[in-house]
Amino acid sequence: MTSTQADVESYLSKRTQFINDERSLRRDHANLPTLSSAEKDADLVVREIRAAEVKSVWNDQNDMIPHMFPGMEFLTAKDVITKTKVFRILAKMPKGALLHAHLDAMVNASTLLRLAMQHDCFHVRSPASLTLQNMKSTLPQFKVFPPNQFSDLTSLTETGYPPDEWVPMSKARENFDPGLGGPQGFDDWVLGALTINPAEAYGTHKTTEKIWAKFTSTFLVATNLIRFYPIWYPYIKEFFLSSVEDGISYIEARINFLYKFMTGVDGEENIPHREWLLEFDRAIRDVKAELKEQGREDEFIGARIIYTTIRFMTPEELEWYLEDCIALKQEFPHLIAGFDLVGHEDSLKPLIYYIEPLIRFQKRVKQLGLDIPFIFHAGETLGDGTDADMNLYDAILLGTKRIGHGFSLAKHPKLMEICKKEGIAIEICPISNEILRLTTSMPMHPLPIILNQGIPVALCSDDPAVFGNMGLSFDFFQVLMGSEITGLLTLGQMARDSLEHSTLKGSEKSQAIALWEKRWLKFCEYVAHQGTLAN
Amino acid sequence: MTSTQADVESYLSKRTQFINDERSLRRDHANLPTLSSAEKDADLVVREIRAAEVKSVWNDQNDMIPHMFPGMEFLTAKDVITKTKVFRILAKMPKGALLHAHLDAMVNASTLLRLAMQHDCFHVRSPASLTLQNMKSTLPQFKVFPPNQFSDLTSLTETGYPPDEWVPMSKARENFDPGLGGPQGFDDWVLGALTINPAEAYGTHKTTEKIWAKFTSTFLVATNLIRFYPIWYPYIKEFFLSSVEDGISYIEARINFLYKFMTGVDGEENIPHREWLLEFDRAIRDVKAELKEQGREDEFIGARIIYTTIRFMTPEELEWYLEDCIALKQEFPHLIAGFDLVGHEDSLKPLIYYIEPLIRFQKRVKQLGLDIPFIFHAGETLGDGTDADMNLYDAILLGTKRIGHGFSLAKHPKLMEICKKEGIAIEICPISNEILRLTTSMPMHPLPIILNQGIPVALCSDDPAVFGNMGLSFDFFQVLMGSEITGLLTLGQMARDSLEHSTLKGSEKSQAIALWEKRWLKFCEYVAHQGTLAN
Repeated sequence: MTSTQADVESYLSKRTQFINDERSLRRDHANLPTLSSAEKDADLVVREIRAAEVKSVWNDQNDMIPHMFPGMEFLTAKDVITKTKVFRILAKMPKGALLHAHLDAMVNASTLLRLAMQHDCFHVRSPASLTLQNMKSTLPQFKVFPPNQFSDLTSLTETGYPPDEWVPMSKARENFDPGLGGPQGFDDWVLGALTINPAEAYGTHKTTEKIWAKFTSTFLVATNLIRFYPIWYPYIKEFFLSSVEDGISYIEARINFLYKFMTGVDGEENIPHREWLLEFDRAIRDVKAELKEQGREDEFIGARIIYTTIRFMTPEELEWYLEDCIALKQEFPHLIAGFDLVGHEDSLKPLIYYIEPLIRFQKRVKQLGLDIPFIFHAGETLGDGTDADMNLYDAILLGTKRIGHGFSLAKHPKLMEICKKEGIAIEICPISNEILRLTTSMPMHPLPIILNQGIPVALCSDDPAVFGNMGLSFDFFQVLMGSEITGLLTLGQMARDSLEHSTLKGSEKSQAIALWEKRWLKFCEYVAHQGTLAN
Repeated sequence: MTSTQADVESYLSKRTQFINDERSLRRDHANLPTLSSAEKDADLVVREIRAAEVKSVWNDQNDMIPHMFPGMEFLTAKDVITKTKVFRILAKMPKGALLHAHLDAMVNASTLLRLAMQHDCFHVRSPASLTLQNMKSTLPQFKVFPPNQFSDLTSLTETGYPPDEWVPMSKARENFDPGLGGPQGFDDWVLGALTINPAEAYGTHKTTEKIWAKFTSTFLVATNLIRFYPIWYPYIKEFFLSSVEDGISYIEARINFLYKFMTGVDGEENIPHREWLLEFDRAIRDVKAELKEQGREDEFIGARIIYTTIRFMTPEELEWYLEDCIALKQEFPHLIAGFDLVGHEDSLKPLIYYIEPLIRFQKRVKQLGLDIPFIFHAGETLGDGTDADMNLYDAILLGTKRIGHGFSLAKHPKLMEICKKEGIAIEICPISNEILRLTTSMPMHPLPIILNQGIPVALCSDDPAVFGNMGLSFDFFQVLMGSEITGLLTLGQMARDSLEHSTLKGSEKSQAIALWEKRWLKFCEYVAHQGTLAN
């Protein structure tokens, strides 16, 4: 061996050690010594299929989609994604817990519209008679009318439509101008108002400010459909069942309790929050019973609620909600998982604005012997040193159990250290971040920074009814395509971490994890077998 | 004081400490206790002007530019930027050293064309007669002809033009079809081939793969203009003088030595590398003399060369360049500052491919008692775990003095630790990264991550002739607009760090820094005075 050869060999061995020192910080590295052969094989199979599809599918040479690459814009890529082998595999993966999910955007928009259609009492209005010109920029507004007070109007599209007057939804749909697409045109109009389309995200609304305006408007439309007592229960059931189909076994849903009442069958806003929870509980029980009948009881552990309201009120107004949260926790200790403040961090109030009521709440909760951790949204921003970015300091100082989004956390070395040390998991919402223009594509997303620091991560869908990323498979897919280091085992670790960092406790949690591990192993065997078939 | 008030006060004091603990990692925080009042005032003045212009200029309500925000796409924003107060202030700032600059893209494209026009011997050709249809996608190619062998052809645009035949440039320009813009059309065609325009960066070429194809093509066109002996000297002089006008006082230019000879006046490729250096040295001397005559000798310390070649050759081929670099260092010890390998990291060879010759070089340099540090490009990529990302491990293991780009460094906690501890500065090229599509805008750029870790940073322009970011003012501007934490003092610290982490040594370095400090203080006084005027 020449002296240079010896130098090179010594360099290579140092290099391997050097890389390994850094990789060993990652949570998916801790399991390496104890992996089953099925897990190792499954990881390799997925890496091979991914590498093949990077060349055959995501190659920037597509005539229909001009700029294709792995982890590209979700809304442009969605139809291609669903046809890939990688996606078909991930669709079968047990995902663990869904920890960041706003209830108002958890059921496919067309399913929600179908649910609403079943109720004659829904009326709809618009600020002007709808035309081809104004339709895209005009939002529908919905309202339930008491049985004996239905409107006589029959159309939103005839020229004589009196602005802002209510029309029974069924009539409005039936008589929707054929020139605007007839009943299908009505559906498209409503669905367009409930979702973000690629032309908006990547064209007309491509700044965070503009896309948030559109995003917020979808909730204004959806809320009046969902906050109707007869819809609430089937809506939640549909959410649970579709989640289970995607491999999600446990859910902590953020419910917006801003409105103090939902509308009852009598058309009055008179259904208080405790009734919302009773129905939520009933949906859990019924879904469990249905699954049990099918011998699938292991696929759904249950669901809980993170109480949320919106960060635009005064600290005084917030007090009511904090008290309400405590009262609900006292009545439904098994349902209330935590408390959060939501809404656009860049434009609404920072956590520090509410510091007095929040500190008082924390003390009172402790005095009452309750367990209502903060699970704060923080750092969902591109800002560096802005109020939204500074929310991270307050979330952590206030002892947040997890961080919702934490997009700007990567900028904070000390905060990352604390998250790692104290096991504060980050609820990362890849597709949400991309559509809301915090990142342009997955390769630009800071997730690898967080993973390389060894901070626990749970992947989440945030508002899939608006973004079209129903379930968790799409988010898992985008993350897998955006990094060479990330593999199936990384996704598995994030699924495991989602249960580990849920608010489940004791034997409930260990059982949930054990059930997941069982399904995970079976899944890995299935994937490994796909590799055998290919060879 | 009620008990909640006391809790809040204790919280707020903990919070201040908490934030300060993290901020104190930053290099711009170390100076806080010793700031002059002019520095403090200047920082405040710039923060105020920025805040005002964020509202008045960068407000997303512009009719001409649909999506405006601070730190937005440079090529779209450039004309707006030059009109802002913030830019006019930064244009006067002493920038310190320019440490990452590829010589072949350092002079404004139209100035380069004007330099070339002075030489009748330049010929130009294209693969087909130029038309409105093919002009944008057809590159000009240039070549110097010996005095007595000029071509008889007179036009590139007439239908009978024989493909790939040479036409004297002056004739080609003079006779450029008026339908294609006449002589101005010729200039536009050449300038379009030497630069990246917004339609390309943000439309037709908006993936890293596509934009690199365009980017690489600009060098193919430029090289044959610049590597002509009579142009080389005035080109370098123009580079130095325009840099000095922008407040740059010292330069380490990366020169691509791939071609072993440049073309002489006789049209033969026969001017060896040592002649290139002699002319480079002459340009330094002459610029210094000119400035001295104007009493401005303090504004230019000098310039050195980072020897580079391209990472597509075999390790065997690299040996010649490494030997050449050593020979040049032996003859011009004051000029050769280091060695680097350049080119598109995502598609070309990784450092590890050249490990044998690189290790051998390092040993030989040591034996010869020379000082030729590696100053490697590494991590100029969106990849996570790809070869280009892995270059960071090798650059650091090979003892790189600084890191060129280091865009993916933010993903590497251990490597960041080493950079901080060992003072490995990162040459960050904000506008280059944005135009080459590693980031979509400044708020998405990882620079704040690097700054918050306390790693030294030098801001650099990379290839301003291609990107249009001549000097350093534009890069400083974009960085300032992309973060609330970053202020004028942060920019000052980066300027100071550029000198601190240059290859200057001993008294040469301390003098350079002292001269910069003197100009910096004067500049801060000027800026502080602007604030006084406004009040």
